[in-house]
Amino acid sequence: MPQATPAYDTLTQTYQRLYLLQHLQAIAGWDQAAKMPPKGNAARAAALAEMAAVLHRMRTDPVLADALARAEQEPLDDAQRANLREIRRDWQRANALPEDLVQRRQLAGSRCEHAWRTQRPANDWAGFLANFREVVALAREEAALLSQHSGLSRYDALLDRFEPGMTGVTLDRVFGGLRGWLPGLIAQVTQRQAHEPTLQPAGPFALQAQRRLCERVMRLLGFDFDAGRLDVSTHPFCGGVPEDVRLTTRFAEHDFLGSLMGTVHETGHARYEQNLPRQWLGQPLAEARSMALHESQSLSFEMQLGGHPGFVALLAPLLAQAFGAQPAFEPANLQRLLTRVKPGLIRVDADELTYPAHVMLRYEIERALIEGEIEPEDIPALWDAKMQELLGLDTRGNFKDGPLQDVHWSAALFGYFPCYSLGAMYAAQWFAAMRRATPDLDERIGHGDFAVVFEWLRANIWSQGCRWSTDELVVRASGQVLEPAHFKAHLETRYLG
Amino acid sequence: MPQATPAYDTLTQTYQRLYLLQHLQAIAGWDQAAKMPPKGNAARAAALAEMAAVLHRMRTDPVLADALARAEQEPLDDAQRANLREIRRDWQRANALPEDLVQRRQLAGSRCEHAWRTQRPANDWAGFLANFREVVALAREEAALLSQHSGLSRYDALLDRFEPGMTGVTLDRVFGGLRGWLPGLIAQVTQRQAHEPTLQPAGPFALQAQRRLCERVMRLLGFDFDAGRLDVSTHPFCGGVPEDVRLTTRFAEHDFLGSLMGTVHETGHARYEQNLPRQWLGQPLAEARSMALHESQSLSFEMQLGGHPGFVALLAPLLAQAFGAQPAFEPANLQRLLTRVKPGLIRVDADELTYPAHVMLRYEIERALIEGEIEPEDIPALWDAKMQELLGLDTRGNFKDGPLQDVHWSAALFGYFPCYSLGAMYAAQWFAAMRRATPDLDERIGHGDFAVVFEWLRANIWSQGCRWSTDELVVRASGQVLEPAHFKAHLETRYLG
Repeated sequence: MPQATPAYDTLTQTYQRLYLLQHLQAIAGWDQAAKMPPKGNAARAAALAEMAAVLHRMRTDPVLADALARAEQEPLDDAQRANLREIRRDWQRANALPEDLVQRRQLAGSRCEHAWRTQRPANDWAGFLANFREVVALAREEAALLSQHSGLSRYDALLDRFEPGMTGVTLDRVFGGLRGWLPGLIAQVTQRQAHEPTLQPAGPFALQAQRRLCERVMRLLGFDFDAGRLDVSTHPFCGGVPEDVRLTTRFAEHDFLGSLMGTVHETGHARYEQNLPRQWLGQPLAEARSMALHESQSLSFEMQLGGHPGFVALLAPLLAQAFGAQPAFEPANLQRLLTRVKPGLIRVDADELTYPAHVMLRYEIERALIEGEIEPEDIPALWDAKMQELLGLDTRGNFKDGPLQDVHWSAALFGYFPCYSLGAMYAAQWFAAMRRATPDLDERIGHGDFAVVFEWLRANIWSQGCRWSTDELVVRASGQVLEPAHFKAHLETRYLG
Repeated sequence: MPQATPAYDTLTQTYQRLYLLQHLQAIAGWDQAAKMPPKGNAARAAALAEMAAVLHRMRTDPVLADALARAEQEPLDDAQRANLREIRRDWQRANALPEDLVQRRQLAGSRCEHAWRTQRPANDWAGFLANFREVVALAREEAALLSQHSGLSRYDALLDRFEPGMTGVTLDRVFGGLRGWLPGLIAQVTQRQAHEPTLQPAGPFALQAQRRLCERVMRLLGFDFDAGRLDVSTHPFCGGVPEDVRLTTRFAEHDFLGSLMGTVHETGHARYEQNLPRQWLGQPLAEARSMALHESQSLSFEMQLGGHPGFVALLAPLLAQAFGAQPAFEPANLQRLLTRVKPGLIRVDADELTYPAHVMLRYEIERALIEGEIEPEDIPALWDAKMQELLGLDTRGNFKDGPLQDVHWSAALFGYFPCYSLGAMYAAQWFAAMRRATPDLDERIGHGDFAVVFEWLRANIWSQGCRWSTDELVVRASGQVLEPAHFKAHLETRYLG
């Protein structure tokens, strides 16, 4: 007979209720980005802010502080103890912030994000700045409060929301290492590829055919359409809830590859969500471990698998079916297209090699912004200087392909960007571990058999939820903590091998 | 300087918060019917039930009882006093019901409604019954509690949710009158129409073209697509919020008229919602007056306007543009198609004349069901007997076109059906009033000018929200309370004129 755990039960009941209300928040958030007509936004923003206040009130109910203290003394098993750790983490963040700030942040983010949708195509930096100043001011206020409560630096306190345990010091070390070898590798690869003839696919590509192709590839990658959807939004994302995952992409008539590989990326996120541990669903224990881990899934799909000759061989005939045969769809050419390295302005369109440059630039700017070393109006000049330095590109006056290109900052998601490159490193680390466990891994993938990949990810990442700290999960899965050398080896093998 | 109204302000602040949270409920409900994949339903149902509990807790906060008593003594203007009346009405309903019942009803309704979606095409009455018994049991429990608190009969207590002030006694009188003249009129009209040659449109009609046609007609009828959408669901409805109205329809390849006129119907609902008084939005005062009033808008659009030669003349060229010209699209033939009277099994496909028979049948069954005079398993036999009696049709064994055809009962919406026919009567009453105010109304409509209709509806119905009781609103708009003679006159003019 299990022993009584009344305090722990109080906590899990509250978190179960939070989970259910967050379900409505997630669906309304998806709808806001994918379906909502423009005049609906003010009311939606107000509704989401009200909901944020309701959730915040639940998290700051004094009953929980007492229950947390008492639950520590109760006879919990290991999984319950891990859940209690995650509940405490969530509770601490919430209780550091006054409800008023939570609501103002939500409102400012909604307003800025909504306006950004039209400001970006209009290249309207001044208009964006008018809303964005408020977003930054509130993020700094939040960072200062979280920093006081946690002892972390202000930027680390925001980073911790997405990547528990990660710090600016570690990022400086990891990105510092990257800066040592990446520019040389980019130069080497672009020089080598300059001599490769690559055919560009000839469009237009009917949007309906593109959508069907994306859905077909999602099925191939194991997405469960009975528990999710594919829709269109300005900025592709993976939203919804584990029981009902909402992917989005965006289509362009003359470029199907961007949308397709974006969909492959989001499908990696989606499978993580669709395969989180069902026995704990509704509790923090069943959530994805961190954003870097999440990105390690999307990049396992988009980069590790998506650039693999085995995936390319499967894709080639699907393209011919979707759009009619053309020489550019031959596997060898397709492989070159998918591994083409070319410095460009847009992060989401960047290749594996130049992507970390986009991330480092954003990390450096957002960290300085949160620490108060720079102001929002300083961003364009810094952006240009860093793009010049890292990728040799001029962005002066081009805000829409510069600091206006991403949704993150408008929605106050400071501390998220580093997770993309951490994810790329983790993804390389997973595939190195898979190759040790399954020496014929590449041969299997080469035959279009991805089952062993999915099974490894399911067993080591998806099914583990928040059972372990990130470092512990990474060690259990791959035998060591984050090791960027795997990323370097992967790039060298793929691009110079 | 306005005087202090602290108690009233407490109430309006709470109702503003309820309004915002109901926004999320409305969007999630729309999504559940229009977008959600099947495996999402259990979590969605649980989330909506949790939200219902949250809202119920807000409505039953003891602070409100006190504020309601004190607000009566405060110096309120007429609009505030009307708002207070509506707040009290909402508060009384909520406070008659325990939270547990609210949540169980929400869950049972979600479960039954979701299963119904597959049970209906499968003709699975037994499967439906398994869930539906619980829905009925909870509805009876609710009716009994509401009856105790209000002094109304149990059925009237449910009816009051949709149609405040309406009673079974009034319905018996109104429907009793209808029973006196309707069967004779149906016989007369069907006999007369038997000699009219009518061409059926020749399909198939591409779904994409049907959708574009529906959107075009919605624009023609003033729907604001910047503040709403058109999507597809099993059972067409008008959902969302006044700032973002979500219409749905369903398309069939061989019948475009059903979908088109269904869309016209929902557009009437939508314009009411899109034009509710903005200055009071967020308060009960700004809500639609009642469901019969709501149906009077949809039926003003679908029947009064939709069957008018002026609308038909506008529609004819649009059909030819959408699907290519064919003789069936000639205005005279189209007019005959749109005013064809033919007893049939399906309520939503019924014409103006036979529609009340479908409503009376449902009213009689649901009233007996709620009063405990019959049990859910008695419904099919009663359904068949009444369809035989009222329309001469046999429904034995055909559940999917019988009691499984509507979503209402599965979702515990008892007391809603009478509103459809009350709405038809009110719609006829509005047009009679419009003709008195604008003697050349039919000539204007005949020229495709609907502005005077929309302006009358806006001034008399839409902009009034809940400013007046239903009877008061009806008298202010049309000079008298509900008078079914206008409906009779309308039918005789249109079908025998």
